[in-house]
Amino acid sequence: MTYKGNAIVAQSGGPTAVINNSVCGVVETWLKSASGKIYGGISGIKGILAGDIIDLGQQEKSIIAGLRYTPGAGIFSCRYKVDAADQERLVEIFKKLDIRYFFYNGGNDSMDTAHKTYLAAQAAGWDMRIIGIPKTIDNDLPFTDHSPGYGSAAKYIAATVRETGIDLESVYTKNKVTVLEAMGRDAGWLTAAGALSKRWDNEAPHLIYLPETPFSTGRFLADVEHVYQELGYCYVVVSEGIADEHGRYISASATTDAFGHAQLSGAGLVLKNMVERELGIKARCNTLGTTQRAAAHFASRVDAGEAYMVGSAAVQYALSGKSGLMVTIERRGDDPYSSAAGEISLEKVANIERKFPLEWINEAHNFVTAEFARYALPLLAGEMPVPMKDGLPDYVRLDLSRGRVNLT
Amino acid sequence: MTYKGNAIVAQSGGPTAVINNSVCGVVETWLKSASGKIYGGISGIKGILAGDIIDLGQQEKSIIAGLRYTPGAGIFSCRYKVDAADQERLVEIFKKLDIRYFFYNGGNDSMDTAHKTYLAAQAAGWDMRIIGIPKTIDNDLPFTDHSPGYGSAAKYIAATVRETGIDLESVYTKNKVTVLEAMGRDAGWLTAAGALSKRWDNEAPHLIYLPETPFSTGRFLADVEHVYQELGYCYVVVSEGIADEHGRYISASATTDAFGHAQLSGAGLVLKNMVERELGIKARCNTLGTTQRAAAHFASRVDAGEAYMVGSAAVQYALSGKSGLMVTIERRGDDPYSSAAGEISLEKVANIERKFPLEWINEAHNFVTAEFARYALPLLAGEMPVPMKDGLPDYVRLDLSRGRVNLT
Repeated sequence: MTYKGNAIVAQSGGPTAVINNSVCGVVETWLKSASGKIYGGISGIKGILAGDIIDLGQQEKSIIAGLRYTPGAGIFSCRYKVDAADQERLVEIFKKLDIRYFFYNGGNDSMDTAHKTYLAAQAAGWDMRIIGIPKTIDNDLPFTDHSPGYGSAAKYIAATVRETGIDLESVYTKNKVTVLEAMGRDAGWLTAAGALSKRWDNEAPHLIYLPETPFSTGRFLADVEHVYQELGYCYVVVSEGIADEHGRYISASATTDAFGHAQLSGAGLVLKNMVERELGIKARCNTLGTTQRAAAHFASRVDAGEAYMVGSAAVQYALSGKSGLMVTIERRGDDPYSSAAGEISLEKVANIERKFPLEWINEAHNFVTAEFARYALPLLAGEMPVPMKDGLPDYVRLDLSRGRVNLT
Repeated sequence: MTYKGNAIVAQSGGPTAVINNSVCGVVETWLKSASGKIYGGISGIKGILAGDIIDLGQQEKSIIAGLRYTPGAGIFSCRYKVDAADQERLVEIFKKLDIRYFFYNGGNDSMDTAHKTYLAAQAAGWDMRIIGIPKTIDNDLPFTDHSPGYGSAAKYIAATVRETGIDLESVYTKNKVTVLEAMGRDAGWLTAAGALSKRWDNEAPHLIYLPETPFSTGRFLADVEHVYQELGYCYVVVSEGIADEHGRYISASATTDAFGHAQLSGAGLVLKNMVERELGIKARCNTLGTTQRAAAHFASRVDAGEAYMVGSAAVQYALSGKSGLMVTIERRGDDPYSSAAGEISLEKVANIERKFPLEWINEAHNFVTAEFARYALPLLAGEMPVPMKDGLPDYVRLDLSRGRVNLT
């Protein structure tokens, strides 16, 4: 196919600190390589269905460039499962705007959506190219060495563990156990990143619990007591999604308030309370929540670069005629680290979750191995420069009133 | 008095991101100005009492300089209330090591300790100079424009609110309410810092609740619903110490787990659950915990500079014969911002807590005024450079085996 028509890009699912690098990569590469319009679907597929579409070529160039250091989903995101009627409507909209290229930036579910849209366009006989652009802090996309967004979240978590670990050790007459809760309900990649902070034997963290192995409260308490007896303090990193041998989430430990209402506390808070109650040791809990996927002030430069690369590669693949695939990251070298874009069919990648490898979890199921550090550390390298104003990051914001498309 | 004898410095209470700047200021200024030894009491007054003392002059100069970007209490900290016997023992140790200068780096309680030690040395007829060096992220020390450590914590909180606020808005089909819990049980300075993120009307945060005014769950729910109806999302910053009109902590809302054990959840989590239960809106809670006092990777350069200044000034004051005082920070100019060291007697400052001014809280008790921003924003300016290794901050660590003092 020779190049023709317009393109659209949209974002889906939870943001990462570097997700907008991919949109920037799409827009800048498109504007350099093609003469059609590059539309943005505001709020993912849901926005496209609602006709909430703008011409990104009409944004200031400096705003598009500023997406490289701006967190959140720059063109907004959604979580939405498309049905058959939605698919038909999508193809209609593509026809109306002569959209021949669709770039969808998201995680597992979004790749499924992209794949369904690919099939719907084929069924409707609408000649177009559809490419998935990976993103997820959870690092659970298969067939790619890692996912853009993971390196920055891992860098933030590891730095936070190092800083709060030093804090814990330096006040060892108080707050003797710190529990840090990381995201990743089903995959332990983010929790494992806490281990990257550790450089010597007794340095924090001391214990790490991933959702990939069953969590035993008895073993946990014994582990904490053992470290505490030896050092006088203990630092624990735990996944929000740890569950017991029957698959019951620890965070769901039924608690009720004074009115009998069920209270869902996080796994970290449950463990903190358990340590205080069962071991009589004062504990603290830091629940990072959305900070770990939004901390663009400390994003990894390698990660940001790869997020841009997969966006740029998506456009190059599409313009060369490829379709129905997700861009992947292939690791090419370890010392020095290097990577390049690769590809996998959307059909293969859709809805598959890559868990943390069991062989990278130690025998006691309370830490990860050095192999994991060798894999993950290169992804944390370098920092993204962020302009500051009044002492705070001066992030950009798209002008959503510019270039609004009228579908009626 | 002309200069004679040795000096000792120690740290007390919770660390800040920049507390070690003060120790660095003490050590470097002492080594330039005096010929006696500069000892470090390891773990505050408790360490001095235990004879856990090292000669800081024997540390590598690069390690002392590296304290400027290293979080935690570099010479360790304690929380310990001295009694009369302790005071006598302290003066004995000072005599044994010919210590004529004592610099105590801490918050309200530590200034009380420094004051008692000052009186004990006088009573024992031991001629010495005792100076308090302020630090606290809580900003609740009186007679000083602000406290070293506050600016960096405020900067981190404001940046985090901005980042997670952008995140919240960009995923507006999910997680529609975010509650961020800040430290500061009795004073709202840190919580108020969330407001520094806001640049326009609808930008996060939308609601802020300080411990200085009684918290009403009814008003809170109405506030959240109001913002939510208007925007489709709502960002709340709340102090860990909010309490109802009877002074009952919201965080103490009695909850019990399946075994009937009392569960203490943070105020943020209580509000998150309340929003979900009472308003039926999905919510998230980020509990910053110790991250806000340890985030040296994003410390304020103004704050770090002032923390160094008060340490350096303490030595200069002491060598000029002053004693029984705490160094303060006096604001000298606003545009451009400038400050200088001042002084207040330890007797006046000890145990007094400075709350957030009521006139800086809006009428609805759910936000702070522009006067607060004018006061606080200059304290966030600039960033401290931190050396990186393997993508993570490469903080220093004192060699505690060097120059250990033998008291027997």
